[in-house]
Amino acid sequence: MTKLIYAFGRGRAEGDARQTALLGGKGAALAEMSRIGLPVPPGLTLTSDVCRQFYEGGHVLPAGLMGQVKAGLATLGAQTGQRFAGTTAPLLLSVRSGAARSMPGMLDTVLNIGLNDETVVALGANSGDPRFAFDSYRRLLQRYGDTVMGVDQGVFEEIVREACHDAGVESEAGLAASALKSLVARFKAAIEAEAGMPFPQDAHTQLSGAISAVLSSWMSSRAIAYRRLNDIPEMPGTAVTLQAMVFGNRGRHSATGVAFTRDPSTGERRLYGEYLPGAQGEDVVAGTHTPLALTDAAPSSAERPAGRSLARAMPETFKAFAAACDRLERHYRDVQEVEFTIEEGRLWILQTRRAKRTAQAGLRIAVEMVDEGLINEREAVSRVDPASLEHLLHPMVDPNGAVDVVAAGLPASPGAAAGEIVFTSEEAMARAAKGIATVLVRPETSPDDIRGMNAAEAILTTRGGMTSHAAVIARGMGKPCVTGAASLRLDVEAGRLTGGGFDLKAGDIVTLDGSGGRVLAGTVEMIKPEPSGAFARLLGWADTIRRLRVRGNAETPADARAAHRFGAEGIGLCRTEHMVFEGERARLMREVILAPDEAGRRASLAELLPLQRADFVELFEIMQGQPVTIRLLDPPLHEFLPGSEEEITEVARGMRVPAERLRRRIAELGESNPMLGHRGCRLAISYPEIAEMQAQAILEAATEAAARTGAPVVPEIMVPLVSLRRELDFVKARVDAVAEAVAVQTGIRVEYLVGTMIELPRAALRADAIAETAEFFSFGTNDLTQTTLGISRDDSAAFLPDYLREGIIERDPFVTIDVDGVGDLMRMASERGRAVRPELRLGISGEHGGDPASIRFCEEIGLDYVSCSPYRVPIARLAAAQSAIAAEAARLSHKDV
Amino acid sequence: MTKLIYAFGRGRAEGDARQTALLGGKGAALAEMSRIGLPVPPGLTLTSDVCRQFYEGGHVLPAGLMGQVKAGLATLGAQTGQRFAGTTAPLLLSVRSGAARSMPGMLDTVLNIGLNDETVVALGANSGDPRFAFDSYRRLLQRYGDTVMGVDQGVFEEIVREACHDAGVESEAGLAASALKSLVARFKAAIEAEAGMPFPQDAHTQLSGAISAVLSSWMSSRAIAYRRLNDIPEMPGTAVTLQAMVFGNRGRHSATGVAFTRDPSTGERRLYGEYLPGAQGEDVVAGTHTPLALTDAAPSSAERPAGRSLARAMPETFKAFAAACDRLERHYRDVQEVEFTIEEGRLWILQTRRAKRTAQAGLRIAVEMVDEGLINEREAVSRVDPASLEHLLHPMVDPNGAVDVVAAGLPASPGAAAGEIVFTSEEAMARAAKGIATVLVRPETSPDDIRGMNAAEAILTTRGGMTSHAAVIARGMGKPCVTGAASLRLDVEAGRLTGGGFDLKAGDIVTLDGSGGRVLAGTVEMIKPEPSGAFARLLGWADTIRRLRVRGNAETPADARAAHRFGAEGIGLCRTEHMVFEGERARLMREVILAPDEAGRRASLAELLPLQRADFVELFEIMQGQPVTIRLLDPPLHEFLPGSEEEITEVARGMRVPAERLRRRIAELGESNPMLGHRGCRLAISYPEIAEMQAQAILEAATEAAARTGAPVVPEIMVPLVSLRRELDFVKARVDAVAEAVAVQTGIRVEYLVGTMIELPRAALRADAIAETAEFFSFGTNDLTQTTLGISRDDSAAFLPDYLREGIIERDPFVTIDVDGVGDLMRMASERGRAVRPELRLGISGEHGGDPASIRFCEEIGLDYVSCSPYRVPIARLAAAQSAIAAEAARLSHKDV
Repeated sequence: MTKLIYAFGRGRAEGDARQTALLGGKGAALAEMSRIGLPVPPGLTLTSDVCRQFYEGGHVLPAGLMGQVKAGLATLGAQTGQRFAGTTAPLLLSVRSGAARSMPGMLDTVLNIGLNDETVVALGANSGDPRFAFDSYRRLLQRYGDTVMGVDQGVFEEIVREACHDAGVESEAGLAASALKSLVARFKAAIEAEAGMPFPQDAHTQLSGAISAVLSSWMSSRAIAYRRLNDIPEMPGTAVTLQAMVFGNRGRHSATGVAFTRDPSTGERRLYGEYLPGAQGEDVVAGTHTPLALTDAAPSSAERPAGRSLARAMPETFKAFAAACDRLERHYRDVQEVEFTIEEGRLWILQTRRAKRTAQAGLRIAVEMVDEGLINEREAVSRVDPASLEHLLHPMVDPNGAVDVVAAGLPASPGAAAGEIVFTSEEAMARAAKGIATVLVRPETSPDDIRGMNAAEAILTTRGGMTSHAAVIARGMGKPCVTGAASLRLDVEAGRLTGGGFDLKAGDIVTLDGSGGRVLAGTVEMIKPEPSGAFARLLGWADTIRRLRVRGNAETPADARAAHRFGAEGIGLCRTEHMVFEGERARLMREVILAPDEAGRRASLAELLPLQRADFVELFEIMQGQPVTIRLLDPPLHEFLPGSEEEITEVARGMRVPAERLRRRIAELGESNPMLGHRGCRLAISYPEIAEMQAQAILEAATEAAARTGAPVVPEIMVPLVSLRRELDFVKARVDAVAEAVAVQTGIRVEYLVGTMIELPRAALRADAIAETAEFFSFGTNDLTQTTLGISRDDSAAFLPDYLREGIIERDPFVTIDVDGVGDLMRMASERGRAVRPELRLGISGEHGGDPASIRFCEEIGLDYVSCSPYRVPIARLAAAQSAIAAEAARLSHKDV
Repeated sequence: MTKLIYAFGRGRAEGDARQTALLGGKGAALAEMSRIGLPVPPGLTLTSDVCRQFYEGGHVLPAGLMGQVKAGLATLGAQTGQRFAGTTAPLLLSVRSGAARSMPGMLDTVLNIGLNDETVVALGANSGDPRFAFDSYRRLLQRYGDTVMGVDQGVFEEIVREACHDAGVESEAGLAASALKSLVARFKAAIEAEAGMPFPQDAHTQLSGAISAVLSSWMSSRAIAYRRLNDIPEMPGTAVTLQAMVFGNRGRHSATGVAFTRDPSTGERRLYGEYLPGAQGEDVVAGTHTPLALTDAAPSSAERPAGRSLARAMPETFKAFAAACDRLERHYRDVQEVEFTIEEGRLWILQTRRAKRTAQAGLRIAVEMVDEGLINEREAVSRVDPASLEHLLHPMVDPNGAVDVVAAGLPASPGAAAGEIVFTSEEAMARAAKGIATVLVRPETSPDDIRGMNAAEAILTTRGGMTSHAAVIARGMGKPCVTGAASLRLDVEAGRLTGGGFDLKAGDIVTLDGSGGRVLAGTVEMIKPEPSGAFARLLGWADTIRRLRVRGNAETPADARAAHRFGAEGIGLCRTEHMVFEGERARLMREVILAPDEAGRRASLAELLPLQRADFVELFEIMQGQPVTIRLLDPPLHEFLPGSEEEITEVARGMRVPAERLRRRIAELGESNPMLGHRGCRLAISYPEIAEMQAQAILEAATEAAARTGAPVVPEIMVPLVSLRRELDFVKARVDAVAEAVAVQTGIRVEYLVGTMIELPRAALRADAIAETAEFFSFGTNDLTQTTLGISRDDSAAFLPDYLREGIIERDPFVTIDVDGVGDLMRMASERGRAVRPELRLGISGEHGGDPASIRFCEEIGLDYVSCSPYRVPIARLAAAQSAIAAEAARLSHKDV
């Protein structure tokens, strides 16, 4: 029979840190901490096999499990000198979930299992604190009633409200032992009334009920949603840890808290955290109380006065805790989030895990740990999520701009964002669907708000601290968040948020300054921050590791400069249509389109030539001899013509042509499916003079730029939308003829390449034939995805959400390459193309070029470079390095076999 | 050195019938006829290598060629007792083109080479007929001046007109010898004036000039157009045959003509042809004279009085000719088109070739030749062009309908068609581009009219016979044609056509009855003919040979019945959207679309259910137990909503909803690229209730139809636009659930299959995964072509013509499968699908399913069936048989290797 239960505690354990799949993150961490001698309350971990069997068996605990648990508890009792279900020295248990990957707040926890009408008395007597005993008992009833017996939490809250009112106190913290005792009686009656059965007095019944409830929470809709959002697989499920209770609510010298071994927001190397005296762990996480800081260095607020830090309140215990944290960070070689409880001055560590951190912190920590000798450069590069770099380049409030501060709170997640105020997650999602940016304002957030938080641009809570649910989740999502803005008065029902002289309602715009912990009225000036020194160092290391080259997609000088500044090694995609969409260029382009014949088109193109040439000269100068891939005109011609009747009138006036003529031409050029219409190389074949003008502008510009800078440019002329080799032959022949003419005219022969975008399935399939003519391929994965899957990106919003909801697809294929379909074609095209032309240069220039998962695939199939928007270039550099590391690991493990 | 010249004549020859690529059709036939002892004037054939070298050398005859020719001519002279360029017994030559495949009238011919001012006198003296000698000389001058020296034909025609006027005769036939002599002098002067140099008196100069001109005509624009239209490759080019002249214009006992060994229009086994007494061959082909019939059995007309047949005029010679024709047909085992000349009572055969024939004739001939033991059934099946069968099913004039006869002419090509009168080929093309049907009316047609004839629905000429240019080409194109309608007065300049009491102008509608040789006013009643017995017999043979099954695409009872009648073995594609596009069904469908929620949709679907079910019951009954593939709703929902403002108002009124609501929904559903939008299985995933209703209707109908007919139907439920296996899983789960419910409700469990269309590249690539769920694949090659090539069929007219013109593609990929691209995906899908599910049923249901070349490919990759529109089912049956024969031949030849 499989071993279903692993014991830990007292310097020993049956498992270790590596067994997270079996024991869950929590179980594995507790085992590991036991092994290295940290003070961990002893306990038993039920493996994730129990969860699997629970679901396979139809939500029934595996046969024999409770027998094994009983045996384990007997040993536990012997260690602690207590007895589970005993009446004199009762052993009380916490029952906690623990999945392989952390799902904060998603799964249920039940504390104080083992308390009943008898043991509560024993606990009160043994501790000499009946109030504490009844507080613990009412907590059990409240949580058990909700989690295990399905009684609405509101029922208990109402009773608490009444009791507080009767006693004339503000919260349950003010209730005396006798009041708590009567609260317990009312809770029990309420449970029996609501659930139709009494709260079980039998400790073993409590225990099996709690275990089942924790296991069931694995399949709650919010847990499923969270897993989907975070790419967490369904199986193995959660482990369950039963652990001897220690009490942070046992009097004045007790407390509970959470700490980070470094600041998770900035990455600064200092112990950082919060605690609540006289409380149990759930009080911290729930965000219902604003906790105190661990040290005096932490930011303070109205609700968190300075001077009440743990370091000051219990210096000895704090010192022990700081030492434990240091030990843990060095042991795990990474920043840890540590949960602890102090019971009557004695420190217990309840959990440690890899700390979530902001992008900024992650970067700083990785680089500083290299400096400290904790990790090496490759590890540092591997540890930073490339996508997180984007947040570092996200806007922040301009320190020199004028602002109206509505309120101050805690800087829970950095960055700044503006949006319409919404008071519910539903509203955040509804507006997001319409493309409206929102700021979600809540008293506190709960796991039910995950999707709303995801939909909002930023999150503001009036309660909670820096480790509250809202703070943790927002940091994970990279969204600005301010918590504990207690000066604001929030009335969700009425849809009002007042404070600082402002009276705000849903739809009003606010800006959240997550780095400064401020709520600002309206939209304020923001700036793009300059990347830090750590940023440059990490990317420098990445550059020495990666094989893939990284280029930027750019056509304006500003974008080209940005790409260059962010480390692009060339331009992978210059969309020439973007260079003629405006002003004089647009007017000339429209003349080309309206011209009655080729001669007319050539006349307007001749005027466009010097403008295009000047644009290219500037681009080449900025790129200083690096490769520049220029795509010939791609979109259907109607995209250059006005759309609305108003625009038509205006453009016609500007061009001095009758509006009717313009209207007729627009009608002629109208298409049923423009994506599959008269565009790309099809334009060059119908109107070769356009491609000829562009080729001339490019080649003349290359000559001119080389003369000016001394760095010869080798332009790569890219023919779009090819599916037949003869299309490319046709266009290349014209480009070559133009090149010859330019060479004769200027006396300088410019080196250049002619290649194509691989963006149609047929091009991928016939890459062998196409490579006979093409000197490079650039995968246009946007269009390749559209055609391979038959999905118009512009129309996909009508059904892709249904697909995600139904689990038919896991990721938007326009964000991450559909490896099985589109990827199959890319692999085929690479192989077939290189079979014909081994030196064929291969790149990617769709949106996927900046997506880390897609970059990983590009590394796998051996592309030469990826190209993406300038702001994603750093991400691509890092992702490329991680891909190289992963590919090497794959090669090594392959060698082993 | 390569042998460039092949001699023939007098019972011997250096080549034979198989060498058509080298000697051209004509050279090979002349060699073969010489070998089998038929009376052929001796000659020399310059091989197609000469043509290749001519073009490779820059339009220069190969060095040494004329020396070899001279030597050959010496031998020829010895055989005939004449001498080329000799003055006493001059040898005269015809110089004719001869490509491997016949290109009637496309290439140049020059007769009477060798005549000059001296030899014309000798020819007159030797023949005792100076008039004949000068007639031959003026023919040489006229043709040589035009073809070799570039003098406009009009110049000569004008001189002839003047000469006739001076002599008071109607045509050159009336000119006496002296008048012809003076005509010759004027022709020579005209040539010198127009060409800037005199007509060459040197026979060898004449000869090399004529050879160059014939070779040059290979690249004339009309020859290039003809080759493109008829899929004739450019190389090898044309051979050139130099042959001793025989004279059909040498007095009363001379004649020239063309005969078919069977009637090329009906296929009837009788010698059929025309001749012109006292004329040279060019007079027959040019259609400028209406010739006489060979036998009295031929139809007569005003210009062709009965009783003047060759059989009656020269009975002995006719008998010899008939015997030669019979010999040729048996020798070639196929119907021959034979050119002959009678010189002073002596028969000469000048050419034989496989006769062009109408679809009807081809079919009848193939079947009758099997009956006659000339060929076997497989050969018969191989000989009939499947595409030609379509013509047999084309309309004919209803014999019971009322008609107004404008004129009677010769029934030159069968079938009937109506259209607007046009008087020029340009106009025919211009109107065809707008989708307007036309009847091209010309005095006679020339090779320059080919494209106009192709654009017109039918062709009418006022001159010419049944073997005129118009007749031959129209039969080849399968278009109705009436020739020699001499009672009509045609004024092309004025755009008037008068006769029979009608005064018609361009744009007026006429119907041409090509089978009856009648011109009818307006549009008349037409009927679809019942296929003949030969049709059924040939297809019966095809059915025993083919491996591929053939199904029809049908959703209406009429189409299903037609498919069944034409031999379809099931329905391969029933497009359910076509069943709800009209009437009550359309109204309910619109209700579904406008419903605010699922409950509303279900309510309207419940009303639609019995209507759909009844439709399916009828379909199943018609198909009598044969398989029926039903595709679930495919088009985007906006296709069911009205388009114009007028329709919106009307539909809104009919539905009793505000027009504004309808308008809003239409706007919501609008798409940028509907082809790639919210359609196919994407609808079933967003609105599963629609697919559920359809599945219920299908399964209940199957139960009902089986009960009624006793023939159980196994419906094949087809899910469209799948690209992910999970899409199919999703829909199949719903279909299975409905099937279970129907089984429970009716107590009868219907067998059914669930499969998918493979119409997206990703589906083809991931066919392995999809085949785990799908029980059949049907290739939707229309959409697969659109996505693989990235071409919207609806928009392709803007550029595909450019592609065809530039030679970038050879065939419209929507007509014939793009084997290299789309075909590659089909092959991949078949292999990957069958690797997972060996019994996977594979079919095709796009337009390509009825295209012979595409069917050939389907045979190659081993599909189980093709499905096409009902009227193409016979074509598919025949093409499938031919594909099987070809596949077997390929296997055998592969075994040889």
